[in-house]
Amino acid sequence: MADESNNPLFFRRILITIDEDDRPSTSRAFRFALTMARDYQAHLGIASVLENNDISIYESLMPDKLNQKRDHLKAIVQDYANRAKAFVVEDVRSIVGEGGDVDDVILQKIVPEFKPDLIVSGADVDFASHGRPGAIGLRLAKKSDVSVIVIR
Amino acid sequence: MADESNNPLFFRRILITIDEDDRPSTSRAFRFALTMARDYQAHLGIASVLENNDISIYESLMPDKLNQKRDHLKAIVQDYANRAKAFVVEDVRSIVGEGGDVDDVILQKIVPEFKPDLIVSGADVDFASHGRPGAIGLRLAKKSDVSVIVIR
Repeated sequence: MADESNNPLFFRRILITIDEDDRPSTSRAFRFALTMARDYQAHLGIASVLENNDISIYESLMPDKLNQKRDHLKAIVQDYANRAKAFVVEDVRSIVGEGGDVDDVILQKIVPEFKPDLIVSGADVDFASHGRPGAIGLRLAKKSDVSVIVIR
Repeated sequence: MADESNNPLFFRRILITIDEDDRPSTSRAFRFALTMARDYQAHLGIASVLENNDISIYESLMPDKLNQKRDHLKAIVQDYANRAKAFVVEDVRSIVGEGGDVDDVILQKIVPEFKPDLIVSGADVDFASHGRPGAIGLRLAKKSDVSVIVIR
């Protein structure tokens, strides 16, 4: 077997987790994911999660309200996808997850389906101004089977 | 101010933490750091830490033994630096820290001095087969003020 210890290593399937509040570190994380995807011709998955916590009991009884929230999040992710395409990233997929904690949805539903080799996350992502703020990237770094970059 | 939301984002000062046991994830982390440093003309710092735990009381009374361990670690880091230069990374610095926990030495001594904007760490680095294995990268990701990538 050839000595591969000095071979270049980069990522081919990059998953960026988007905070809909678009805090500074998420914006920087997105720019890094774009740069890597463009320069190494990687597939780019842009994911966001509609948390259970985002949905009140009242809203859960009002399907229209829930659909409205879901459509709002889909539109945000689609906007990121359009920006990625404008940045000359060719292979972009929008992913909106739902239900449970953000990190669980990402690790148990989105990752097995998209199969990233790198997850990119901002350091202060909290995905809805509540829950456990500032920790999504760290929890992904801890629990993921693939490489994770936490951007500040 | 111009809209910078889609500007490329990459790193200019990359610090890679080396586990002298050279486990698979450290080897991959090194390859990623080399690739980034080469492709974006970044400064590369290659750091390892001689832990207090590595030094027995017996050895601390035997300066020769301690010097021998220090020289051994320096040689390992220098070897990585030579490999980086062979990979056409131009600006490479070898850094050997000492004393305290690995993450404390990195964050309190090496980072303020080298001023990286990215720290690259393997996921299973434990820096001497003892202490708190598998957690250096995660602890850096949690406590650092700069971006951290944990490579698996």
